Amino acid sequence: MRPQDIIRHKRDGGELSRAEIEAFVRGVVEGGWADYQSSALLMAVYLNGMTTAEMEALTQAMLHSGEVLDFSHLDAPVADKHSTGGVGDKTSLVIAPLVAACGVCVPMISGRGLGHTGGTLDKLEAIPGYRVGLSLREFEDVLRRVGFAMSGQTAEVAPADKKLYALRDATETVESIPLIVASIMSKKLAAGLAALVLDVKTGSGAFMRDEGRARALARALVRTGNSCGVKTEALLTDMSQPLGLAVGNAVEVRECLDIMRGETGDVTRPVRDLSVELSARMVALAGAADSLEDARKKVQGALDSGEALERFRQNVEAQGGDARVCDDPARLADLTLAEVRVESEHAGFVVSIDAAEVGRAVASIGGGRIKVDDRIDPAVGFLAHVKVGQELSAGEPLGLLYCRGGAACEAAAARIRAAYKIEDEQPTHVPELIKEVISQ
Amino acid sequence: MRPQDIIRHKRDGGELSRAEIEAFVRGVVEGGWADYQSSALLMAVYLNGMTTAEMEALTQAMLHSGEVLDFSHLDAPVADKHSTGGVGDKTSLVIAPLVAACGVCVPMISGRGLGHTGGTLDKLEAIPGYRVGLSLREFEDVLRRVGFAMSGQTAEVAPADKKLYALRDATETVESIPLIVASIMSKKLAAGLAALVLDVKTGSGAFMRDEGRARALARALVRTGNSCGVKTEALLTDMSQPLGLAVGNAVEVRECLDIMRGETGDVTRPVRDLSVELSARMVALAGAADSLEDARKKVQGALDSGEALERFRQNVEAQGGDARVCDDPARLADLTLAEVRVESEHAGFVVSIDAAEVGRAVASIGGGRIKVDDRIDPAVGFLAHVKVGQELSAGEPLGLLYCRGGAACEAAAARIRAAYKIEDEQPTHVPELIKEVISQ
Repeated sequence: MRPQDIIRHKRDGGELSRAEIEAFVRGVVEGGWADYQSSALLMAVYLNGMTTAEMEALTQAMLHSGEVLDFSHLDAPVADKHSTGGVGDKTSLVIAPLVAACGVCVPMISGRGLGHTGGTLDKLEAIPGYRVGLSLREFEDVLRRVGFAMSGQTAEVAPADKKLYALRDATETVESIPLIVASIMSKKLAAGLAALVLDVKTGSGAFMRDEGRARALARALVRTGNSCGVKTEALLTDMSQPLGLAVGNAVEVRECLDIMRGETGDVTRPVRDLSVELSARMVALAGAADSLEDARKKVQGALDSGEALERFRQNVEAQGGDARVCDDPARLADLTLAEVRVESEHAGFVVSIDAAEVGRAVASIGGGRIKVDDRIDPAVGFLAHVKVGQELSAGEPLGLLYCRGGAACEAAAARIRAAYKIEDEQPTHVPELIKEVISQ
Repeated sequence: MRPQDIIRHKRDGGELSRAEIEAFVRGVVEGGWADYQSSALLMAVYLNGMTTAEMEALTQAMLHSGEVLDFSHLDAPVADKHSTGGVGDKTSLVIAPLVAACGVCVPMISGRGLGHTGGTLDKLEAIPGYRVGLSLREFEDVLRRVGFAMSGQTAEVAPADKKLYALRDATETVESIPLIVASIMSKKLAAGLAALVLDVKTGSGAFMRDEGRARALARALVRTGNSCGVKTEALLTDMSQPLGLAVGNAVEVRECLDIMRGETGDVTRPVRDLSVELSARMVALAGAADSLEDARKKVQGALDSGEALERFRQNVEAQGGDARVCDDPARLADLTLAEVRVESEHAGFVVSIDAAEVGRAVASIGGGRIKVDDRIDPAVGFLAHVKVGQELSAGEPLGLLYCRGGAACEAAAARIRAAYKIEDEQPTHVPELIKEVISQ
């Protein structure tokens, strides 16, 4: 099967067969396809799309291009969550211990932040000593003992994705739904899951700002997961403002600890609510509850009883971190930091927030990465005090910026101030946190 | 200007600016673009197309990627013809001397045959001693002395085209009208022409079998040529059967010599008619006649008077060939060849001919190339005795195959026999030689 024939088939809008897709992925990994042939096919896929059958075949081929983990010996159902990413999106840190406390194993392979979004691994590293680079043996060991483990992706998992992602990044074919689906699902499914819940974000801080495209992505992910034999659901959720209170690394861990400690205010509540709902769906899909309602009760119970916090503490200890942060979250803070009050210049209602701009402002002072090899400053961050729809008087704080001072700090504060749109009229529409549940 | 930004612009259906196109072509030649980025852009162009302004900019950028010839010192108008290729398409050998005899210089840069089509250089090499690999100095010298010169492309002309063509060939992006236009026009315009006439072929032996697509290509070529400042016209011509009598190399040269010697039969007439019309349009566009009618008269006069044959003889001498073939075309033949009569199996009318299959049959016995590095046997070929619409009795010859004998010869004869579709009903439609003239 020549690369040219496969490229022509997709170029002309045809549906690639499983054999054609397998030949492509094998060619990418083993070198039978030249990079310029792969990128021509990627562009043809970008412009002509893929059917669910093709996405499933591509996911399977990429997944089987590397090591596939198997946790069937753990004698517990295995589930995971994946978020398409956003600003202040820290639910993984609450969900993993919560679901583990309900008897479902969570082998969570996470990533780093780039651009306006944060990454779970960066957040965890704000805990002194915490190790995210576990070997497979260590990962399995923590998973068995604690019920969840958090680590970065190893080179052995889905190597086809690594190669293809680099090509997509250089050829503007990242934002293709079929290619996103295969990239996400091949890595997630390589962890040998029974159930997967997806948090597909839409709005100003999401990769898919457009709700229609985000919905199409969610549907494609759910169909592909189910047709790969993994029970899959997606929530389409709001990312038109930072999620919860904190944007940064230490500050986000602290917010999660507050939630697990039962200290939840108005601004933090969406993080708790979304974590509970995603967790309940994982527990229900994994078969560890009689119904979704039952799963919600179990999850809420594990949160209220402190079991989730206890699991988190066990995990921090098992992964080498300083578990004292669980009882004293202030230990995460760097007391030398400057605190800048970001104030509203005039009175009115918050009608919208450019969440991506808030994310980039935090990244600009070291809270994220502008370039892949930037170093993270875990201590800096922003605490948002107001949400869309809220009324403010002039000079009232939009939030508090933790930073190292200087011009960069002033500039970041100004960017955040500009990201909040304040108007006289009360907005008629305040975005709902969960917009839609997609089960098929 | 990053490659990614330019790729994204075309991916999203935008019109690339001249600066973007120049950056791309520079990047291809100088290495600033990776091959996988170029091929992603080529696929985006394939699927999203290009405007006339983009085609003009791409042609200019590719043309200026290498040496641009300048024959303005010759003190004669300079014109050329380009055919998109077909089976038995040998008009260049008649046109170049004919136009030269009318006072217009023809610096003809030609190619080799591949697949079902022949190439002018291969045909010329059927003349013993003829040299097609002239240096630029020799080429200019022949052009000045004889009025036309025939040579292969040098590495210095449009290097961007060479690089891009190799990528297109490996990524199924050859058949893109904008990319074909820029490839043809950048090479032709690098010869410093005042006028260009295109012979765009359609039908079973053409690259663009579909008439609609061939017409679109012809229009795009004409618009691009004119907007590059070269007077350009195209004829949309029939390639639903081999052009004229001969398919092969020596046999095609012989057919051309017969035409220039005034020996034209029914089967050869279309070659003569098309050569005269294309020549007349070159002469008229180049300004060497008062009108197209006047140009036709001049061209016909040069053919009838033997001036064209005389120019051809001078060219053969100047390019090192045995000019005795001009008076005794039988010198081109190899008398050791087998002659196989290809006969119709039943009586009826020729309703269609798969011209590409006739071309491939001739290539299979050495008359063309299946692979780029195949060697040509100049002596083999096919002489077609019947055309579409003609009536035959059973056993009457479709034509005569010259070959080296053996199984390959029998197989080629069988392929040719199968390429002729004979039916009881007379076809209602016999294809016209010149379907349309496209001037803008």
